[in-house]
Amino acid sequence: MIDIALLGTGGNMPMPDRFLSSALISYKGRKILIDCGEGTQVSMRMLKWGFKSIDIILITHEHGDHVLGLPGLLSTIANSERESPITIMGPKGIEAVVRGLTVPVQYIPYGLNIIETGERDFFVYFNKEGTELREDVSDSGYFDLRISTIELDHSVPCIGYGIYVPRKPKFSVEKAISNGVPKFLWKALQDGKSVTYEGILYHPGMVLEGERRGIKLSYITDTRPIGAIIPFIKGSDIFICEGTYGHEEDHEKAVRNKHMTFSEAASLAQKGDVKQLLLTHFSPSLKNPGEYLENARNIFKNTCVAWDRLVRSIKFEES
Amino acid sequence: MIDIALLGTGGNMPMPDRFLSSALISYKGRKILIDCGEGTQVSMRMLKWGFKSIDIILITHEHGDHVLGLPGLLSTIANSERESPITIMGPKGIEAVVRGLTVPVQYIPYGLNIIETGERDFFVYFNKEGTELREDVSDSGYFDLRISTIELDHSVPCIGYGIYVPRKPKFSVEKAISNGVPKFLWKALQDGKSVTYEGILYHPGMVLEGERRGIKLSYITDTRPIGAIIPFIKGSDIFICEGTYGHEEDHEKAVRNKHMTFSEAASLAQKGDVKQLLLTHFSPSLKNPGEYLENARNIFKNTCVAWDRLVRSIKFEES
Repeated sequence: MIDIALLGTGGNMPMPDRFLSSALISYKGRKILIDCGEGTQVSMRMLKWGFKSIDIILITHEHGDHVLGLPGLLSTIANSERESPITIMGPKGIEAVVRGLTVPVQYIPYGLNIIETGERDFFVYFNKEGTELREDVSDSGYFDLRISTIELDHSVPCIGYGIYVPRKPKFSVEKAISNGVPKFLWKALQDGKSVTYEGILYHPGMVLEGERRGIKLSYITDTRPIGAIIPFIKGSDIFICEGTYGHEEDHEKAVRNKHMTFSEAASLAQKGDVKQLLLTHFSPSLKNPGEYLENARNIFKNTCVAWDRLVRSIKFEES
Repeated sequence: MIDIALLGTGGNMPMPDRFLSSALISYKGRKILIDCGEGTQVSMRMLKWGFKSIDIILITHEHGDHVLGLPGLLSTIANSERESPITIMGPKGIEAVVRGLTVPVQYIPYGLNIIETGERDFFVYFNKEGTELREDVSDSGYFDLRISTIELDHSVPCIGYGIYVPRKPKFSVEKAISNGVPKFLWKALQDGKSVTYEGILYHPGMVLEGERRGIKLSYITDTRPIGAIIPFIKGSDIFICEGTYGHEEDHEKAVRNKHMTFSEAASLAQKGDVKQLLLTHFSPSLKNPGEYLENARNIFKNTCVAWDRLVRSIKFEES
C-alpha cells in the first residue's frame, strides 16, 4: 500500500485557508515530497507523518510557490537529527536556487544530493543502509519505486513526475519444481536475482508467475496541457493535476500564464485513461474551487477537487 | 497614534497554531516590518493591513526563523504593484542572505535598498515622493520616526531596534508675539525650520513651547540580557522582548542557546522603567506560555504574554 497526502492545493501565494500545492508520498516507511512552497512544513506538521524519513524531494520548477519552503523544511529535518543524505531533484537551474535559499540555514547535518534532470527514469531502492537512487535497474533484485520525469510547458523549465510501485510476481512452487530449480535457490530467484549453479543459469522467470500490475501515480503542475502528458500518465491510479482556473472564461488567462483550466486537466485524464483525477494548484482568486467541479466531471467523471491534507491510500489490485 | 501588531510569537520553526515572531508597525499610513520568518505574509494577510505600504523591513539577524519569509513576502508585495523602493536593514551579512533568498524570485518591480548596520540612528521622513531614510536630521523640518539600533548578544550578529515617534511642541502665539516674530514666518518656524529675515535669525524655539514626550517602542530578540539593553529601552511605551523559555529551570538552556527566560526579560523591563512588556519568541516546546506569566509578573507587573496578531495602539500622552 502507498499513501499520498496533498499538503496544500493553492498556487501563487500561501493563503490563510490554503497552503501551497505539494504532495507527500509514504511507502514502506520512507517518504518522498513533491514541491515545497512557503508553509509546506506547517501542513506536514498538521499531518503528523514526521520529518525524519523524507529521503527524496522532487521539485517541479523554481517558482517561489514551489520552492520557498525548502530552507525551513531542511532546518526542521535537521532538528529531527537525520544524518543520511537527502536527494533533491529538479529541472536545470535548481541547484543554484537551493544553494541560494540555504545561505541562512546554519546547520544541515546530512548531505544534499542535488540532481538537475531532463526526461529520465530513476530507480529507488530502500536499502538497510539508506535510500539509493540509480539510473539503471540494479542486478541485486527488484527496485522499490521508479521515478519518471517529463518536461512540461511552463514559463520556466518545469518537470512532471510519475511514480511507479512495482508488484512482485507470485511465486509458483509448481513452476519451480517443473523447471528443476534446486530448493535452496528459490529465495534468490524470487527476489529477482539470477544464479548460475553447477554450470546452469537459473533466472527468476523459472519460479515466478507472470507480471502483475503495480501502482502508478502522476503529478503534473505547472503547465499547459501538452500532448506528451497523455502517454506519460497512461493508466495512472491517481493523476494529480493542476487546475489553476475553474471557470471556462479564464481559458485565455490559462494560456497566457501557462496553466490549465479544470476542463483541460479533465481532458488529459480522459485521454490518459486514468482511474482518478485530483485537481490542485488553485489560483488565489478561486475562493471555492468546488463550484467549478462540473466543468471537469462533464469530461472525466472520476474527478475530485482536492483539499489540503486530503489523503489517498492505494492498494495493489486483488488478483 | 501608532499601531503595532505582533504577526507571530514563536521561535525556531513555524507551528500550526503559532507563526514566527515578527511585528508590523503602522504610522501615518506607512508600514515598517520587523523580521520575516516563514509564514509571516500569511499572518499579515489575516491582519488585513495590506502589503503595498511596507517601506522598511528591519531584520534582527540571519537565522531562518527571522528571514525565510522574505522572498515570498517580496513576491507578494510585487503582486501589489508597488514601484517605490523598499529598505531592508540588518546586521553584517544580511545582504548575502537577501541576495541568496531572492534567487528564485522572478519579478521584483521595485528597488531593494539593503543596509548592513552596527549601532546607529536613522531618521525616517514620509515625503510625498516616498519614504526617505537619513543618517542625520534633515534641515527641512521634523523627522517622522527615528530608528535606533543596538548590538545584541546572540550566536550570530544580531540587532535590536528602537523606534521613536517625536511629538511636535505646541505652538505659542504669546511666545511668537513677545519674541517679535513676523506672522508670515510662524508656519515655517512651527515646522521646525529656522529663517533669517532682514538680518535677524528666527528659530523654532521662538514660537514653540518646550519639548513634548513622543512614543517609544523597543524590539529586542534574540539575545542574552546584556546591560546595554537597559539604557536603550529606557522609558519605552512598549517593550517587545523575547522570552524563549518560561520555566526558571530552563535558565541553563537560555544561556547555552543565547536566549532569555521570562524572568530575565522582566528584569530588563523593570530596570529599563518601561510602561509595558510584551513577551514573544516562545520556544516550540512552550505549549502554553501563559502558564509561566507569573515568573515575569513577580518582577515586572505590567507584563503580557503576547499572541499572534495582538494589536496595541499608542497615542501621545494627554498634555
